[in-house]
Amino acid sequence: MAINYEKRLITLQNSLQEQKIDVAIITDPANVFYYTGFNSDPHERFMALVLDGRQQTSRLFVPALDKEIADNESIIKTIIPISDEEDPFDKLQAELGTNIQQIGVEMNVVSMFRHRRLQDVFPDASYTDIQPLVNKQRLKKTRSEIDLMQEAVTISEKVLTEGIKKVKIGMTEAELAAELEYLMKQFGAAGPSFSTIALAGEKTAMPHGTPGDRAFQNGDFLLIDFGVVTNAGYCSDMTRTFVIGEASEEQRNIYNIVLKSNQAGINAVQAGVPLKTFDIAARNVIDDSGYGAYFNNRVGHGLGIGLHEEPSLHENNEAAAENGLMFTIEPGIYIPDFGGVRIEDEVYINENGEADVLTTFPKELQVL
Amino acid sequence: MAINYEKRLITLQNSLQEQKIDVAIITDPANVFYYTGFNSDPHERFMALVLDGRQQTSRLFVPALDKEIADNESIIKTIIPISDEEDPFDKLQAELGTNIQQIGVEMNVVSMFRHRRLQDVFPDASYTDIQPLVNKQRLKKTRSEIDLMQEAVTISEKVLTEGIKKVKIGMTEAELAAELEYLMKQFGAAGPSFSTIALAGEKTAMPHGTPGDRAFQNGDFLLIDFGVVTNAGYCSDMTRTFVIGEASEEQRNIYNIVLKSNQAGINAVQAGVPLKTFDIAARNVIDDSGYGAYFNNRVGHGLGIGLHEEPSLHENNEAAAENGLMFTIEPGIYIPDFGGVRIEDEVYINENGEADVLTTFPKELQVL
Repeated sequence: MAINYEKRLITLQNSLQEQKIDVAIITDPANVFYYTGFNSDPHERFMALVLDGRQQTSRLFVPALDKEIADNESIIKTIIPISDEEDPFDKLQAELGTNIQQIGVEMNVVSMFRHRRLQDVFPDASYTDIQPLVNKQRLKKTRSEIDLMQEAVTISEKVLTEGIKKVKIGMTEAELAAELEYLMKQFGAAGPSFSTIALAGEKTAMPHGTPGDRAFQNGDFLLIDFGVVTNAGYCSDMTRTFVIGEASEEQRNIYNIVLKSNQAGINAVQAGVPLKTFDIAARNVIDDSGYGAYFNNRVGHGLGIGLHEEPSLHENNEAAAENGLMFTIEPGIYIPDFGGVRIEDEVYINENGEADVLTTFPKELQVL
Repeated sequence: MAINYEKRLITLQNSLQEQKIDVAIITDPANVFYYTGFNSDPHERFMALVLDGRQQTSRLFVPALDKEIADNESIIKTIIPISDEEDPFDKLQAELGTNIQQIGVEMNVVSMFRHRRLQDVFPDASYTDIQPLVNKQRLKKTRSEIDLMQEAVTISEKVLTEGIKKVKIGMTEAELAAELEYLMKQFGAAGPSFSTIALAGEKTAMPHGTPGDRAFQNGDFLLIDFGVVTNAGYCSDMTRTFVIGEASEEQRNIYNIVLKSNQAGINAVQAGVPLKTFDIAARNVIDDSGYGAYFNNRVGHGLGIGLHEEPSLHENNEAAAENGLMFTIEPGIYIPDFGGVRIEDEVYINENGEADVLTTFPKELQVL
């Protein structure tokens, strides 16, 4: 099933009309991709999908050097290239005129600098945050999107299966990370969805540690948190923790608490309950085992085109879970100077309001 | 030579005092790294270096899960962890009080959303853009920084030397990109500084094309634009273009025009003249040869901790070149449906106001 960009755009245009927004200026590259099919990182250059509700027109402003790709990939066919020596805000004004009352922008994305420049060229305009509209659309994944995300997970699991075969005493974290990222491209991914985290021994206590020269030793925890982004533009994100050589009783104990927590989190997933329920279910297992002080982050986050999207699964999120949500469940125990365990799956709330787990890689403790 | 973070901080603090800024809130991860030594991507979480000029204190707010790494890496020792269920703006208010008159922020980085939240918790404050202060500091690279950037270039050139040995008919762009990124880590880089661009044949006409399944054929241009980021946190960025098998006369002609343009750009580099001079010198060569319409971007950009920093070398930049500037010179000719050539070097304006070229990889046309 192909992605229906037109449908996405129409949904947004209807919402904009309801909110009486004259012109929407969408500059988050992930959102531009979501609505147009054009997937590009403009770095500091200006790129925007501009929906003009006054005349029912759509324009895509792109850096001049990306015009050819935008022509090929975007469903919006009015492409306005901006050269490096041009001012994008002057160009916006030239295209749209100065007489705009209500501008919709993504307030999480538009910088104070760009806001000021917009105020310069559209002096009469007020601003509405359209982030909630866009987020609400992106929050609910369609079956087509889940198929694309399953492809990303499938590649990831092939990578992990092959990758752990290469693990041996003396190999460094950085070497393993390099092997994993090489395998990603071998198995057809566009690349990693974030810089691969492969940590060993006491370094596993750092949820966001960077792989380095630490060489694998007998008895090390080995934590691998990684994901791919596919050519279709969707991300995966999963974590498995292993032990190298021989596992101590304490390692097995901690591992099994995290596994039980992971399963409790997943078992709690269903439509209709508050999102915090999933966090609390996982957290209770760790709290009850006495390790509560060592689990200091939320249990999961949404993902899709972006690696971190809504919803945020933390213990105060009262919003109701609903069909179409896609997120990670990733409890962990991180003990400084000892090590840590995280087990992370990707979970989808399907059409029946039930949890579908996309990740299938075994979760019992594997000693490599 | 080690980086002197203290000195960087003191320079900034003096500038803040001159501008009567009570509190500076620095949230660009690259700037946090620049001033503290803590190099971390918080994704959507809140991270900020907060300099309080009223009490001469410095605090580093980090996501709770990064606290241990921040403790280890940051020269700022007052680390304030923020849990996922906490509101970072409430936490800022609790630490700083509400009585702040003048807040300095990076206006290119702070979103409208965060600006509004700041206005909520510091209702009496006005805002000053400290981006220019920070950019001015980061613009001028010290010798220590150049040494670190030279390391990044040296790794890149080893990668390219080994990488092109693997090129053969039938290999795909994506396969070559994977090999290059694998070599980066083999040669000690933390990873690519951006997603490696390896393009063949007609696809070389797209300055920002994505490597795909296009298999190398006899007579293809092969354009490789890539860079690494080192563990010390500095980026490299360079491009070489090759021909596979046999080069046509037109290919040689275009290649040699771009090479002449690259050399003219580099030859123009010196302190004291307007930055646009470098762009114009390179552009004139391409214009004079009749290919001006096919060179539609600026000749180069600054780099350092970031891949794209100031200065922007475009034909309207009147600012004066000065010692300490580090940037790319990367003219190109991109002909749709035919192909393109880019030759990109890294150039530094040294203590004597002269150009030092960091990249040494040969620039005569190589037929692979």
